[in-house]
Order: sequence, then structure tokens, then C-alpha cells
Amino acid sequence: MTSTAPAVEPFDVVDVIRTKRDGGRLEDGQIDWVIDAYTRGVVAEEQMAALAMAIFLRGMERPEIARWTAAMIASGERMDFSALSKPTTDKHSTGGVGDKITLPLAPLVASFGVAVPQLSGRGLGHTGGTLDKLEAIPGWRAALSNEEMMAQLESAGAVICAAGSGLAPADKKLYALRDVTGTVEAIPLIASSIMSKKIAEGTAALTLDVKTGAGAFMKDEADARELARTMVELGTDAGVRTVALLTDMSAPLGRTAGNGLEVRESLEVLAGGGPADVVELTCALAREMLAASGVHDADVEAALADGRAMDSWRAMISAQGGDVDAPLPTAKHVEEVRATEDGVVTGLDAMGVGVAAWRLGAGRSRPGEAVQAAAGVEIEKHLGDEVRAGDVLARLHTDTPERVARAVEAIEGSWSLGAPGTRLGDRRIVMDRIA
Amino acid sequence: MTSTAPAVEPFDVVDVIRTKRDGGRLEDGQIDWVIDAYTRGVVAEEQMAALAMAIFLRGMERPEIARWTAAMIASGERMDFSALSKPTTDKHSTGGVGDKITLPLAPLVASFGVAVPQLSGRGLGHTGGTLDKLEAIPGWRAALSNEEMMAQLESAGAVICAAGSGLAPADKKLYALRDVTGTVEAIPLIASSIMSKKIAEGTAALTLDVKTGAGAFMKDEADARELARTMVELGTDAGVRTVALLTDMSAPLGRTAGNGLEVRESLEVLAGGGPADVVELTCALAREMLAASGVHDADVEAALADGRAMDSWRAMISAQGGDVDAPLPTAKHVEEVRATEDGVVTGLDAMGVGVAAWRLGAGRSRPGEAVQAAAGVEIEKHLGDEVRAGDVLARLHTDTPERVARAVEAIEGSWSLGAPGTRLGDRRIVMDRIA
Repeated sequence: MTSTAPAVEPFDVVDVIRTKRDGGRLEDGQIDWVIDAYTRGVVAEEQMAALAMAIFLRGMERPEIARWTAAMIASGERMDFSALSKPTTDKHSTGGVGDKITLPLAPLVASFGVAVPQLSGRGLGHTGGTLDKLEAIPGWRAALSNEEMMAQLESAGAVICAAGSGLAPADKKLYALRDVTGTVEAIPLIASSIMSKKIAEGTAALTLDVKTGAGAFMKDEADARELARTMVELGTDAGVRTVALLTDMSAPLGRTAGNGLEVRESLEVLAGGGPADVVELTCALAREMLAASGVHDADVEAALADGRAMDSWRAMISAQGGDVDAPLPTAKHVEEVRATEDGVVTGLDAMGVGVAAWRLGAGRSRPGEAVQAAAGVEIEKHLGDEVRAGDVLARLHTDTPERVARAVEAIEGSWSLGAPGTRLGDRRIVMDRIA
Repeated sequence: MTSTAPAVEPFDVVDVIRTKRDGGRLEDGQIDWVIDAYTRGVVAEEQMAALAMAIFLRGMERPEIARWTAAMIASGERMDFSALSKPTTDKHSTGGVGDKITLPLAPLVASFGVAVPQLSGRGLGHTGGTLDKLEAIPGWRAALSNEEMMAQLESAGAVICAAGSGLAPADKKLYALRDVTGTVEAIPLIASSIMSKKIAEGTAALTLDVKTGAGAFMKDEADARELARTMVELGTDAGVRTVALLTDMSAPLGRTAGNGLEVRESLEVLAGGGPADVVELTCALAREMLAASGVHDADVEAALADGRAMDSWRAMISAQGGDVDAPLPTAKHVEEVRATEDGVVTGLDAMGVGVAAWRLGAGRSRPGEAVQAAAGVEIEKHLGDEVRAGDVLARLHTDTPERVARAVEAIEGSWSLGAPGTRLGDRRIVMDRIA
């Protein structure tokens, strides 16, 4: 029997929404259809918003999250690095203040002969974006074709570039929707958003840096653990060797927050120096990424100390048009924030620092907004440092001095001081490993 | 100090959504703003959809519902009947199968000198709409200006007409959104939707017919009670004398479902006859409406028996162009549904009958669709009737015979038969009164 009836949709979106609203489990077919129909525009934004809120409040079980992720991957193209002469390994961070780790990490890992295809994004709000940071380097460009990316992976070993719009377009659409509908913080939706892009990127191994603490997206450690576990399960189920490190984001990473300032600090790390916390996390993540690609017991500290990582950096940046010898931009205006009493820094609120950097011009409030390459915060007094009244706690950099007052408001209460002579225990950056 | 800054919105919609999402109580100012901003288009459909789902799953407290309702009223105009020479009383039914009660009720009440301004709607799905029913009368028109309405209330005493778009426009927008986002069945949203329109209509008294059972919107009695209680509270808080009757909608009301068929049955009631359940509910509601306007112990049965109610009907219909003497349209095709065994009807599923009438062409699937004036179901065997195999259970009327097969599918399992000789107890149409 042949049918001349027009194609009709196999599901009713209101039924799908109601199923989740009433606490039910979505069937595979419902998930596949709703993601596809949303990508085609058959499921409207307001319908997906209602479903996202229902998922937020009702949750999803592991098989639902896996299917949701697979459906988002299926909405677009997949990359394939199997033709490369070397193994590939990738990293994702859930984002934090002063998190410039990708910058030294990608070339460090590449210096051991493992390819690092790092598709990155731009910042929004108080967390910076890796592409925004690298764009502080004169000439550097974020957009590469797939062919350019493959060629650079062969030649330089590492690529940090913008994700093409072809990967998981459903996620791109859904992410923008969640952002305006109060449905961002749902663990199933966060995990599937991150992992759909990472799995579609076609890497063989993935190391996740899941941050927790005041400056992190997941302030609560239990939530961060659940997110890490969910993502590791999703990666593993999809055949990607996936490991997560749970890391501390109660205080900013390193001593800078802001695009050009963070590039400068990354160069210090690549030159064998830099702040201890940045070095520690860079090395811990590098060891995980290398181990996942079969390179065990790599002496990553040596590769930082002897210039191999810096050589990889120069190759990586030059390949994308960046002038590795040009001076980084400096801000037109620098303001000092000073201490009003004596003590020892026992706490430094990452959120206050991040919001200050954003207000100074380092971040954006809306997608597409321009950012200042030189704006940001330079922290002079970090955890454990002795402070005397009148000491400079931080320097605020900006090209637009009218922004300083509101940045000061955000940052001035960020230091907690203990009695002079207080000694802090060692800060544990890597809190746990979840595999 | 003067400010030249552009007007900015006083709230962030994502904050409002998050508050409700996380189980918090919305402040008065947040509610006022979000309804106003939604009406202005500043809060987008997808944002309101997420908020509606959060309200669905988190609920609202009594003061929140009252404020939400007030904000929807404030989004549009209010009617004012205080210039009329007589008191006004209004009625609202949550809708059911065969619910033609408004047709005999409005003129019956008006025949006692109380004005009944009945702003009605059209049907969607398995429940019919009062305007669709009246449009089966040749010449009758639903649209009246406010001036025409006031004049008719003075002259004929009763008006049943289309609600203007100026009343609670926020509700109109929100209702359409809820319909496509699986957020219809939330009691706070249902109650505020109904009551915002009814309060904006400016009636002094309101009688609610809240139905429960298989053919009702609220199938569960506890839900129906909560809805009734919520609406009575909202009305009372707004200064409208409000009473609710909780009524049975497990079986259809009367013996017809369909536009012209229900007009015919209403005329039987207005002529002093008609099915006992329709008469019982019409009289019960009429007594409540009259009592709320100070007319106590009215002999409403007498007004049906002696033609006073019919006189009011003729005045009301004529005033809106209806030809009260013209024959009602008849369907081109009538199909019989017959019994296959003997017994006594112990159950008649209102939903099966309602869906059959809809499929025959009496109802619509999308707003704006045309309906057939003559299509519908004529029930021959109702609760308590003796049935023999081969007896006609119902007659299906339609102008489009190709629809019959699917209507039969919907209706054929609707009769539950007990052993021959079974006697049913009296059906209680009015289950409770909530004031």
C-alpha cells in the first residue's frame, strides 16, 4: 500500500513536555525527534523553554542524558581526526576566574607528540573566554577551516580555534535559549551541552577540569561532583576515554584576570616560571591528557623548564597569524586598590575579581560585544600573602576609566584578612579525580 | 537631581524565573512587572514559557495568585456596569461535554430582572463553545460593541457575546502560550486566567460551575475542589460576590453534544421540558446567580414552565440578529450506533462522546477553524436506560460522512452496561457548593 499523505510529525511536542513535566522518562524516539524538530524549527523556542524548565526541575536519568547528547551530536557534523599521524587528546574546563590554563596546556601536551585540537569559545559575564585572551596577541585569528586545523595539528601539534557552527547546532540553539530562560544550571543540560560538542569534535581522549567554589559555575562541591560524574559517564558511553579533575575555584587562578594580562602570565608559565597554582593545574591536566593518549610518566615540568613547551606555543600562535614577538597591548589607565588594615590574606573571592575584570572591559554582557584586550585585574596580594595598610592589593587595568568606580565596588570586599602572622595550609588545586 | 538616562527595566526576567524555579515566592513588584513586560513584548514568549512551567511545578501562594490576577486585569481595560438600572450577575463554567447550560440559564436569570452579561468563547478540542452553539441560529452574531451590550442588557436583560480583545490581553497571550507549552493544567494559572477576565468584566456577582469527572478539564475531584476554592478566594478578594458549584461531568450533560443539537435541547428546557440533569443544573445555577443579586427564593422552575424564560431568550437572540423562528440546520448524514448486547447503562463516558462530536465536525482542532452547525452526537441511551442488543445507542450527525468512522471509534466503547434490571441511584449533578 502506498500513501500520498503529507509527512506528519511522529510526536506531539506537548505530549513530550507533559511526560517530563509529570516526572516521566522520555523515550529514545521522543528525544531524537524533539532535538531534530527543534533544530528544524518545528518545535518552537517557547516549547523547548518549557521542556528545559521541566528537565531542570524533574531531572533526567543516565540513559536519557546519553540519548539527548547523541541527538544533539546527530543534529550536526562530526569531526574526524583518525587520519592524523598522532593520537588526539582534548580538554574542557567548566570555566573560572583567571583560568588561562588552556594557553600553556595545549602547547605543553603537543610538545610530547600528542595532537591537541582545542575548539574554544568566547567569554560571557565574569568568566573569560580563551579566544578573547588569544586575540590580545597582534595578528592572531580564531577562525580556521577544517583543512587548516588538520594541517596545523600535523605541523604545530596544537590548535586553539573557534568551534565551527556545524558542530551540534541543536546545542548552540538550546544554549542561547537556556541563557535567557533561567535554565542554565541544570546538570543534565550542562553535561549534554559540553559533551555533545566534545564528542562531535571526534577526539579519542578527553580530560575535564570541573571547577567548584565561589568563582565557579558550580559553587557547590556536590553539584560539581555530579556534573563531573555525569560527563565522565557520557564520554565513556560514547567511546571517548574521559577523566575529570575536580579543582578549586574559590580563589582566582594565578594573579591575573583579563585577556592580555592572562596571556602574559601564561608566557611566564611557558618560560618555566609563573604562579604555583597555574603551574600545578597545568601540569596535572597535562599528565592526564598524555596518559589518556598512552604517554605515561611524562616529565611535563621539564618541558616547561627547558623551552619545549614554549617552542610549541610559538609554532601554534604563528600558524594562526599571531606575532609571537610583538608586545602585548597595555591599558591606558591603571588604578590601584589598597589595603586599609594589616593582616594575612586568608580568602580572595574569585567572583569579586571576575566581576571587576568584566566591568573594566575584559568581559562582555551580551554575545557579540567587543572586549578590551588590555583590561583586567592584576592581583598583588593573593592567598597567604602578608598585607600592611596602604599596600597595593590589586591593579585595575582599563582603557575606559569611567568603568573603574564600579569595578572597585565589585572587588574591594574580596580580600579576607586574618591576623598578622597567620599561616595558611597549602592550597589544594586538584581536589579529586573522577574516572 | 535630574537624570537623562534611558528608561531601563526594573527587573531582570531571568532573576524572576529563577526565583520561582527555586521555589521562592514572587514579590508584588516582580509580578506586576513581568505581566506588563510580557504584554509589551519585553519578556519573550520563551521566557514566559519557562516561568509558566516553573509555576506549574512550584505552585503559587494565595497572595501571589491574587497579584498575578490583578496584574493581568491591569494589562487591559475594565468594563463597568454600574450605570445599569439593575444588578449584574455572571456565570462561568470550566467546560464539559454537552454543557449548553448558559443558553437556558442567561435568559432564565434575566427574566427575574437581573442583568446577565455573559462574555463567552469558542470551543477547542472535545468541549464545545457557547458562541459556536449560538451561531447555529440563522442570523445570530457574536460580536457586539460595548454600547450595544449595555443597551441589550437594559432591553433584553441578557447578553451572550464574544469577549472583546481589550479585556486582560496578557491573559489572552498567556493562554495561547500555555496551550502549546504543556502548562495549561496548573491551578494557579487556570484560576487567574478565568478570574482576570471575569473580574475585568466588572460583574458584581459571579457563580462558578466547576466540573469534575471523565469529561471535565479537571478529572480529579480534589483538583476541581482546589480550583473552585482558589477562584472563590480570588473573586472574594477582588470584591466580587463569588460562589462555586462543584458539578459532575463523568457523563455528558443532557442528550446532545454539538452546536445546533444543543440549541434544540436548550429550547426544550426553555419550553419547560428537556433532560432532568440539564434542568437541575440550570435551576441550581440560576438560584445561586439570583441570590447573589439579592433575589432570594426565586421560583425558577415556574419561569421555565410558564414561558417567561423563553420570552427572555427570544428577546436576547433577536437583539443579536438571530431568527428565533427559523429552523435549525440539520446534518446531511446521520449514522446510528447500536448496542451489541442487553443491559442497563451504568456509565457513559463523557470524553468518548465529546471526542466523537469533535471528530464529526462540531469542534475544532486549531483556533479559527470552522465548525459544522449541525454536527454532533444525539444520545439515545443515557445513564439508567434499559438497552437491548440492536437498540440505537446514539445518532451521529455530520455533513462530512468520511468523518464517521473515527467518531464511531471514539464513541463505541463509551457505554458501560450492567446486568438487565440493574437500578441506578439518582445522579447527583451538584456535588458541592463552595463559598
